[in-house]
Amino acid sequence: MTQRRTSIPIRIGRVTVGGNAPVVVQSMTKTDTRDILATINQIQELEECGCEIVRVAVPDKEAVEAIPAIKREASLPLIADIHFDYRLALAALQAGIDGLRINPGNIRDREQTAKIVAAAREKEIPIRIGVNAGSLPVNFEPDAPLAERMVNMALEQTRFMENLNFNLIKVSLKAFDVPTTVQAYQMIADKIPYPLHLGITEAGLPRAGAIRSAIGLGILLYQGIGDTIRVSLSAHPCEEVFVAYEILKTLGLRQRGATLVSCPSCGRAEVDIVALAEAVDKHLQKITNPIKVAVMGCVVNGPGEATDADVGIACGKGKGAIFRKGKVVSTVKEENFLEALKTEIDSLSLDWRGLARW
Amino acid sequence: MTQRRTSIPIRIGRVTVGGNAPVVVQSMTKTDTRDILATINQIQELEECGCEIVRVAVPDKEAVEAIPAIKREASLPLIADIHFDYRLALAALQAGIDGLRINPGNIRDREQTAKIVAAAREKEIPIRIGVNAGSLPVNFEPDAPLAERMVNMALEQTRFMENLNFNLIKVSLKAFDVPTTVQAYQMIADKIPYPLHLGITEAGLPRAGAIRSAIGLGILLYQGIGDTIRVSLSAHPCEEVFVAYEILKTLGLRQRGATLVSCPSCGRAEVDIVALAEAVDKHLQKITNPIKVAVMGCVVNGPGEATDADVGIACGKGKGAIFRKGKVVSTVKEENFLEALKTEIDSLSLDWRGLARW
Repeated sequence: MTQRRTSIPIRIGRVTVGGNAPVVVQSMTKTDTRDILATINQIQELEECGCEIVRVAVPDKEAVEAIPAIKREASLPLIADIHFDYRLALAALQAGIDGLRINPGNIRDREQTAKIVAAAREKEIPIRIGVNAGSLPVNFEPDAPLAERMVNMALEQTRFMENLNFNLIKVSLKAFDVPTTVQAYQMIADKIPYPLHLGITEAGLPRAGAIRSAIGLGILLYQGIGDTIRVSLSAHPCEEVFVAYEILKTLGLRQRGATLVSCPSCGRAEVDIVALAEAVDKHLQKITNPIKVAVMGCVVNGPGEATDADVGIACGKGKGAIFRKGKVVSTVKEENFLEALKTEIDSLSLDWRGLARW
Repeated sequence: MTQRRTSIPIRIGRVTVGGNAPVVVQSMTKTDTRDILATINQIQELEECGCEIVRVAVPDKEAVEAIPAIKREASLPLIADIHFDYRLALAALQAGIDGLRINPGNIRDREQTAKIVAAAREKEIPIRIGVNAGSLPVNFEPDAPLAERMVNMALEQTRFMENLNFNLIKVSLKAFDVPTTVQAYQMIADKIPYPLHLGITEAGLPRAGAIRSAIGLGILLYQGIGDTIRVSLSAHPCEEVFVAYEILKTLGLRQRGATLVSCPSCGRAEVDIVALAEAVDKHLQKITNPIKVAVMGCVVNGPGEATDADVGIACGKGKGAIFRKGKVVSTVKEENFLEALKTEIDSLSLDWRGLARW
């Protein structure tokens, strides 16, 4: 993996984005922001599933008016998502928001943008310049390739803000097309010193959208690009957070909860590996420690992978070998596979809790 | 994207792997190979979902004996997966298999390997040198980093086969750890001229395993590395094929079926976007043409993305604008969103079928 790109850190509430801070996971509420209780509840759910910064849509005056009440109850830093009307950005700043996202494709007036920047500078609130392929003005560099248009739109806005002596900036360049998105972030990475917020926009339903997001964000993070990520899925926002952490865990950038290694099963397997893996995975949902559990169907890779895992099973005909950190601790009958693994997992978790206390 | 790495093409039955051939999608049956009917049925399912080459585990003599009957009924090229016993490889070649996969970590005897190579050369059947991190002999370069050990194991076997005047070779270097896997393939890419088979081994259940596979395979394919892919998931093999195509489609390397662009929804949405996206996705399952359909919650990116799509909807309060290739074709009431989209999708599909006939 390439060494992480250097960026000037900013603070969204108590969370640092950029610099040496871990890559931050964010999401967005899908409730009506004006429905204060529903929005607070969803922010609570998001915090529980590991989200670190939450964005709320602020489409009108009523939504702005909900911000103080949401801020009072929500423990996550709150970003207001603003389009079209600069006055909503000003009002959101007044209402105590921790960060602003404005879309330079949707607020084109320089004077209006200058007013937002002046207010944000006074309150020391960062602004994300959130460019989106779907909302680029059609008359903006119409002949240039899409990635270049996105980058130039962001650079234009960045320079405008810098000239106003404002540098609490974060930038995103989202498109649905993954190669376009990757190219755009690569192009801007060494042109500006600000943190980059990564995302594949409108990635769709979780089954395909997680794959698209994983490829786009994976390629960029592997190249050391990206300081915070938001996975956009047509689903409950906690699914976005799950996918975000799986991406970061896969690249060793964050840890969160258990990891299940399990074989795909084949004509060699003597037991129902898929059912066993699903049952173990269900048990692992409540584990918060970063343990690695292996469920293997046979001896081909079984012991090898199980050795690498904290806990594992290599299944054979009617019986299986339970491994713990590379050592066989027991041989169990097929009817006891799941219980034996659960016991090992729970005992390992206890060890972790014990260690955590020290 | 980097230009694709050059490789010497090989043929697995009627399917070309490497050279300028499209990246080939393969999977593996999870039935007991000795259960001929179940295995044939699963191969049939795999062909229907788009699989292009299928591998079957051949763990014993009975499994070998099933090969001729499976070959007779199965229309996909068939690869035998062999571990430990070189005689099974010889027997599989005799039984008419289209390709062999042997694991150099599990057949270490040079004379045995030479016998397999001689028989494969005679029948002009390609062999995959399938290295797996979990089955590397512990005494093989124990002090080297894992990726290097995997690469050196593959190179040792490759040179051995070359010395026997055999070059119908394909190589894989699979580990669960994605950065290790990526590094291994990158290291071997310019050391050998053979096609590379990509995979993340034991990637787990679909929800997390698809993400791990997408990152690993995505990074490599983006760098032009990879001639065939197999996604390993603890699930029905058609799920592996689905994920494989989504990875390839995301990078523009293959086309298959419709693509749904849908927004994640937020406090700005006036309709239930997730439910609408799910209903549209269900309808798209039967579409085989590579059309792009957009379901957007509001006007922020809606028209922009809908313009880019073949068919799209940008929803507003109680009504939505249906787009077709960049033009509004109608405005529909909320209760008619789904039907209107379905009609557009079906009519577009008809156009495609019409075009296909010409």
